[in-house]
Amino acid sequence: MKWEENVRRVVPYTAGEQPGRKDVIKLNTNESPYPPAPGVARRMRELETERMRLYPAFPEQTGLAASLAAYYGISTDRIFIGNGSDDVLSLAFLTFFQSGRPILFPDITYSFYPVWADLYRVPYRCMPLCNDFSIRKEDYIPAESGIHNGGVIFPNPNAPTGVLMPLDAIEDIVAANSGVVVIVDEAYVDFGGTSCLPLIDKYDNLLVVQTFSKSRSMAGMRIGYAMGSPMLIKYLNDVKYSVNSYTMNYTALELGAAAAADTGYFKECCSRIVRTRECAEKELGRLGFTFPKSYGNFIFASHERVPAKEIFEKLKENDIYVRYWDKERIDNYLRITIGTDEQMEALYHTLEKITG
Amino acid sequence: MKWEENVRRVVPYTAGEQPGRKDVIKLNTNESPYPPAPGVARRMRELETERMRLYPAFPEQTGLAASLAAYYGISTDRIFIGNGSDDVLSLAFLTFFQSGRPILFPDITYSFYPVWADLYRVPYRCMPLCNDFSIRKEDYIPAESGIHNGGVIFPNPNAPTGVLMPLDAIEDIVAANSGVVVIVDEAYVDFGGTSCLPLIDKYDNLLVVQTFSKSRSMAGMRIGYAMGSPMLIKYLNDVKYSVNSYTMNYTALELGAAAAADTGYFKECCSRIVRTRECAEKELGRLGFTFPKSYGNFIFASHERVPAKEIFEKLKENDIYVRYWDKERIDNYLRITIGTDEQMEALYHTLEKITG
Repeated sequence: MKWEENVRRVVPYTAGEQPGRKDVIKLNTNESPYPPAPGVARRMRELETERMRLYPAFPEQTGLAASLAAYYGISTDRIFIGNGSDDVLSLAFLTFFQSGRPILFPDITYSFYPVWADLYRVPYRCMPLCNDFSIRKEDYIPAESGIHNGGVIFPNPNAPTGVLMPLDAIEDIVAANSGVVVIVDEAYVDFGGTSCLPLIDKYDNLLVVQTFSKSRSMAGMRIGYAMGSPMLIKYLNDVKYSVNSYTMNYTALELGAAAAADTGYFKECCSRIVRTRECAEKELGRLGFTFPKSYGNFIFASHERVPAKEIFEKLKENDIYVRYWDKERIDNYLRITIGTDEQMEALYHTLEKITG
Repeated sequence: MKWEENVRRVVPYTAGEQPGRKDVIKLNTNESPYPPAPGVARRMRELETERMRLYPAFPEQTGLAASLAAYYGISTDRIFIGNGSDDVLSLAFLTFFQSGRPILFPDITYSFYPVWADLYRVPYRCMPLCNDFSIRKEDYIPAESGIHNGGVIFPNPNAPTGVLMPLDAIEDIVAANSGVVVIVDEAYVDFGGTSCLPLIDKYDNLLVVQTFSKSRSMAGMRIGYAMGSPMLIKYLNDVKYSVNSYTMNYTALELGAAAAADTGYFKECCSRIVRTRECAEKELGRLGFTFPKSYGNFIFASHERVPAKEIFEKLKENDIYVRYWDKERIDNYLRITIGTDEQMEALYHTLEKITG
């Protein structure tokens, strides 16, 4: 077809499998094993379908923005809300990485970064993680790396490794990159990491991105947000309002506000997941796995004897889904989401049979 | 700030005002005056907030896609579903208008088109409407216009004029542009227009875009869709899955399916709006307005004596919101959404005082 010559061709990101059956143990996409805050169900019963005939409110003017602002102790002009953190990150690539110079991110990281870069024609360089999967800070400091970069992005803790970078290292990177935007993707920060959010007061080039998909148990509602200087947020909104006037529907705004309002439930869920992760470290260690210390709601583990791919397939035969990438450097690792204690017990039991 | 040099700067689209108060008569953003189908409220009461902890389904595999496919008598591989038709159109600009040659659209049309073109660096040329606001077909036929264009997009009926282009003219344009993609934006086609959907069987370069925001009373839920050849849909999905794995949340998918399933209610709402529009034509004519025959859920009207801007402001003082653009060629027109009969009576009454 002649029109095909004019089409943007891309290799899309592949999300983790969503098995149709409900009776599987799903530890493959880092969802929370706990339901959304009880206020979400209450609020849903109050929603008016009549209201759906009207366009939704602008997110920055809603109770959702107000709740987040109150929780983080910042003003609403420092918050951008989008349709999941993928929407937020995608818009940030489009908005901030326009220099024509390569942006930098780790070689082992969230695999959507190179996809957005390719889509928006942003050049990039992948900086290799150290052997212990930590990020080498110096790689992101122009004076040391010798790279005149166009921006920096990394998750903290990193995905899929779970490795946390200390706050002072992040500050060094942000300070050394004042001419470009630095995005810290904190999708997993609520499980024991330290957020770099306080740095946004000091550095107007820092964008911190978080999500409701993991620690707030609402992957299905698609709510993500970014926090930064009012200027960064304004530029992001300008691009957003040039793509789609209304990315957040009525239900996401209302139910997101209900979830954000319940800080107690949120913290309790995070604590439970951290406790289960600590238990999982012991059990997986006992079964012959090694892994870097994780600060996420997952463990990135390799077995001393049985290849990861084999374990992955055998777990699936037993209706337990974990994540595996057939990719250099990490092809002998599994990313195992922390589920409920019951789900994890079933996992250990099955792993014992597979690896024993 | 130095990082600002690397930012994509854009002038965003400005949506119609969303007044905070509920007691106004809102005829400014072409929303339906009728609530969503009764099945939407029923389905909402059955939704499980527990399900929200998981990522949503892929839209093309849902009951929403199946319902639309059944209604239009096409297979689901010919349907792309997005987060409102703005999301669908934005992705289509990014996907299909990559030739570097100018795309063509009318000078008076949906004002988001130049915004997307600017955002994605797509060159474009605006082709002037005739004085009666009809689209000059020849302008979009390369052999007659002499323009080697990179694509074509127009709404049918056009916005904000309501003028309908006959199906044979559309076919001529699509057939004459086989080397590029032609997008027909049918946001308003359900109010008496003729859809060009049957042409997608014959022309693989035709993308037809529709929305739940007008005729299906669900602007607040953000559901739009495109129909075309499986190849067009595949390319669109590749780009979509390179932006955001999940643009449609659980509630939009479920409630959209409930709305799509009720064809009877949908048709009844459209008929009522058409009847009210016919009545409005008489009333507005009696009050000294002229307007092209509209096939949308709005009328684009100019008064014989009182300037549009003055009427716009006086209506607002009376808590009646309509849409006005201070823009060449249309700065003496108002776009008035068709509301309920009661809302329209209040409008006529107020217009009588303003223009009398």
